[in-house]
Amino acid sequence: MNTLIIGDIVGRIGRNILKDKLRQLIEENDINLVIANAENAAGGNGITRKVADELFEMGISALTMGNHVWDQKEIFNFIDEERRIVRPANYLPNTPGRGSSLLNINNIKIGIINLQGTVFMPCNNNPFFVADEEIKMLKEHTNIIIVDFHAEATSEKIALGYYLDGKVSCVYGTHTHVQTADEKILPGGTGYITDVGMTGPYDSVLGMDKDKIIKKFTSSLPVKFDIAKGPAQINGLVIKIDESTGKCIDICRINKNYI
Amino acid sequence: MNTLIIGDIVGRIGRNILKDKLRQLIEENDINLVIANAENAAGGNGITRKVADELFEMGISALTMGNHVWDQKEIFNFIDEERRIVRPANYLPNTPGRGSSLLNINNIKIGIINLQGTVFMPCNNNPFFVADEEIKMLKEHTNIIIVDFHAEATSEKIALGYYLDGKVSCVYGTHTHVQTADEKILPGGTGYITDVGMTGPYDSVLGMDKDKIIKKFTSSLPVKFDIAKGPAQINGLVIKIDESTGKCIDICRINKNYI
Amino acid sequence: MNTLIIGDIVGRIGRNILKDKLRQLIEENDINLVIANAENAAGGNGITRKVADELFEMGISALTMGNHVWDQKEIFNFIDEERRIVRPANYLPNTPGRGSSLLNINNIKIGIINLQGTVFMPCNNNPFFVADEEIKMLKEHTNIIIVDFHAEATSEKIALGYYLDGKVSCVYGTHTHVQTADEKILPGGTGYITDVGMTGPYDSVLGMDKDKIIKKFTSSLPVKFDIAKGPAQINGLVIKIDESTGKCIDICRINKNYI
Amino acid sequence: MNTLIIGDIVGRIGRNILKDKLRQLIEENDINLVIANAENAAGGNGITRKVADELFEMGISALTMGNHVWDQKEIFNFIDEERRIVRPANYLPNTPGRGSSLLNINNIKIGIINLQGTVFMPCNNNPFFVADEEIKMLKEHTNIIIVDFHAEATSEKIALGYYLDGKVSCVYGTHTHVQTADEKILPGGTGYITDVGMTGPYDSVLGMDKDKIIKKFTSSLPVKFDIAKGPAQINGLVIKIDESTGKCIDICRINKNYI
Ligand SMILES: [Fe+2]
Ligand SMILES: [Fe+2]
Ligand SMILES: [Fe+2]
Ligand SMILES: [Fe+2]
Ligand SMILES: [Fe+2]
Ligand SMILES: [Fe+2]
Ligand SMILES: [Fe+2]
Ligand SMILES: [Fe+2]
Repeated sequence: MNTLIIGDIVGRIGRNILKDKLRQLIEENDINLVIANAENAAGGNGITRKVADELFEMGISALTMGNHVWDQKEIFNFIDEERRIVRPANYLPNTPGRGSSLLNINNIKIGIINLQGTVFMPCNNNPFFVADEEIKMLKEHTNIIIVDFHAEATSEKIALGYYLDGKVSCVYGTHTHVQTADEKILPGGTGYITDVGMTGPYDSVLGMDKDKIIKKFTSSLPVKFDIAKGPAQINGLVIKIDESTGKCIDICRINKNYI
Repeated sequence: MNTLIIGDIVGRIGRNILKDKLRQLIEENDINLVIANAENAAGGNGITRKVADELFEMGISALTMGNHVWDQKEIFNFIDEERRIVRPANYLPNTPGRGSSLLNINNIKIGIINLQGTVFMPCNNNPFFVADEEIKMLKEHTNIIIVDFHAEATSEKIALGYYLDGKVSCVYGTHTHVQTADEKILPGGTGYITDVGMTGPYDSVLGMDKDKIIKKFTSSLPVKFDIAKGPAQINGLVIKIDESTGKCIDICRINKNYI
Repeated sequence: MNTLIIGDIVGRIGRNILKDKLRQLIEENDINLVIANAENAAGGNGITRKVADELFEMGISALTMGNHVWDQKEIFNFIDEERRIVRPANYLPNTPGRGSSLLNINNIKIGIINLQGTVFMPCNNNPFFVADEEIKMLKEHTNIIIVDFHAEATSEKIALGYYLDGKVSCVYGTHTHVQTADEKILPGGTGYITDVGMTGPYDSVLGMDKDKIIKKFTSSLPVKFDIAKGPAQINGLVIKIDESTGKCIDICRINKNYI
Repeated sequence: MNTLIIGDIVGRIGRNILKDKLRQLIEENDINLVIANAENAAGGNGITRKVADELFEMGISALTMGNHVWDQKEIFNFIDEERRIVRPANYLPNTPGRGSSLLNINNIKIGIINLQGTVFMPCNNNPFFVADEEIKMLKEHTNIIIVDFHAEATSEKIALGYYLDGKVSCVYGTHTHVQTADEKILPGGTGYITDVGMTGPYDSVLGMDKDKIIKKFTSSLPVKFDIAKGPAQINGLVIKIDESTGKCIDICRINKNYI
């Protein structure tokens, strides 16, 4: 089976470019399943019911999140019931929502796990150990497990990739909004990339208006960020998984700039 | 002119793969100038006179550095005299060495600037303002200026790229040891990539033995890192610069895994 | 002369307890000058024109600030004209307001400098070097110079104290909201304390409602902080300065809990 | 019963001043139990068998540690067997040593817990939840529980104090090496202070040579720290605990400068 993973969708520009192009990407790559990181999907910050439905209607089957998960307060109204949204599993006890989910796509069961890094980010539970626990639960149902590791430091991301090598189908990174060129299949059969990248405004700093971000770095004043305007990019990853073993047998970056 | 930029060279494996393959890369890409980041060239930490000479003899014309610049104490013996080694220009006053250098390659003058980020790294002088000062000095001699921004955060790196767009030939990132897939020519004619990547052990975490790094993330114990063994990779960037204007007219990643 | 320094004033409870008790503290300690840190004076975040006037009317002659200086947007309307408000001097160029100010109290000139730390805080200009520059300017007018170093790390604060020992009358810390018990006169005659503490709700975490802060540390959810209620505390410092030499000849903590 | 708590002992100067003065402090304050933080006891970094024995022979009954616990490698030879040494309980699984210990002093059982903060420090397990677990185990044996919270941020320390109020006899902070003046008995009967301070060289930055630390903050060069020389200070805390209830009924700082 072929899975398309979409990097952090930023705001309306990110959603609109998917509305235009996702169908074609699915066809060209013979995709069976689409997952996307949606922590910035609603105006750059978090997600709403309306935005989530918009993404599901496009053909995205599951949404992973990250440190922006709670930015829109209305998420508390639906995250407990919405099995297609997964927030970092290593959040502290009593966090609403779920850290993993089991999808059923054409009678194939696929486990999705979301984890958040701890380097240069707030301290949560150890993502390596929590990954082990989540995998153990999902393995009772399926060998096909896909992990979105939402993290900053390249060392922590690559280390988790090797740590989970042979235990899951794919570990991919999100959060930096810049796609990396290190996609590979690790020795144990796990597909890996440090960061899938960002789906949103092309001419921007991580999706945000570049002049605002430059002002932030060149002054000691507070700066309100705005989403950038202009042409869009889609950053993603296609992984081919052997359904019988759960191993990744092909991995290919998607990096489209519609300029 | 075509410049080849080599991402952080890690230890003997990094140097040896260049000894084997650099000549070929230079020929295939019709390269006039080679620059490399050498902050990890000596055993993963810093640089020595011997290692620097080894790199110069291979055909590398200038070495930029980063936060590991002082790891080998003997650098203090030669950094002041060695004009081909450039350490971050935004270090505090009274730092040995230089933050920029003017090369003369076949009668073409090329300015090289090294800067270090301030996000998730120690605080130094503001890299944006120091870049302006260094560029002003170099512009008296040449329009061809290449900037190695040794930094962690993607936001700071992309922001500096746009900030310097139109003022320099290229801004490339180093330090994360993972090549990014976002190479582009910015609207003002500046070549840009968030990180050139790492030249060293392929099957590793940033060049280091993966088991040691995994142990670091899964225990509260100190871990001594070792350089990884095994096959090597070369990560680099080729930029074509119009010598009359100093503008970047082509940019292409080099990502070779010799496995 | 005797100067009373008041630690970070938090909200209405902080202002009200000063309204009640400041007159008495001034009389008991034979105070000639009162300075306060006001970065949290308006509802815990920043300062307004009205709040500043309220504090000046109580008999406070100058207000120093810190990382919360811009929290109330209206400060941009008056900070350039208001010579009695001083924000960190080591902010980047083109920051509104001033980093030092020269007061004239009963024909005695007193220089006030505000600086912000760089450890565990955003990177700004180096506070040690900026201190040197500000002192050089003020020394043309007076030997009496008082420095509010708004910083987190004890190492950076004590280091600046020793660095400025003999050059200024007093270096005192603010920002942690907890008074330290290390007040002393350094060998060169500079009064020093790592943190003056906080003036506001006694039964609180740094002035904030303790249940909210506990929730922040025991969940992965966003928490909106509220100012705590209940009895108040005044944290301060009294320094006696020899007007002819500018040296500190006595230093004494004020730590009053009105419970 | 009266317990004397000694703040981070730094090197030989710290140990020697205790050798000279501890007996007197014990007598003057009618002390039944002495606990000390020893993470810097051996040359400023960690602890050795010899140094630990030296401290036990002085009359110290238990040693708590912190982020420097592993600095001397020989600790791995004895930490598992040495019940009088306690390292942070919230370290990840499979850490040698113990995070709490039950002492028996004149037939009174006292539980000691060591925890490490997560703000501005490496991420470990959540100290609030781990505190709950350790307390639950110790409560089966005693109501007298003393917690050393080795942490940087005042917010995290005060929050833990309130969180554990009524559950333990005392929560005291260590790590910043500066004694705070906020000792108090919280509403539920728990003694609290944000930091006990440091026992070692008086004229120093956290026990270290001040010129070296100043050089670190005023240059971009690596600096090797040395322990400072000169007169010593003892920073500590005396808490009186009601043995029947485990509640703190008196709390008093010890702040002696032998200059
Ligand atoms: Fe994101
Ligand atoms: Fe994120
Ligand atoms: Fe490097
Ligand atoms: Fe680096
Ligand atoms: Fe404050
Ligand atoms: Fe502050
Ligand atoms: Fe310590
Ligand atoms: Fe410590």
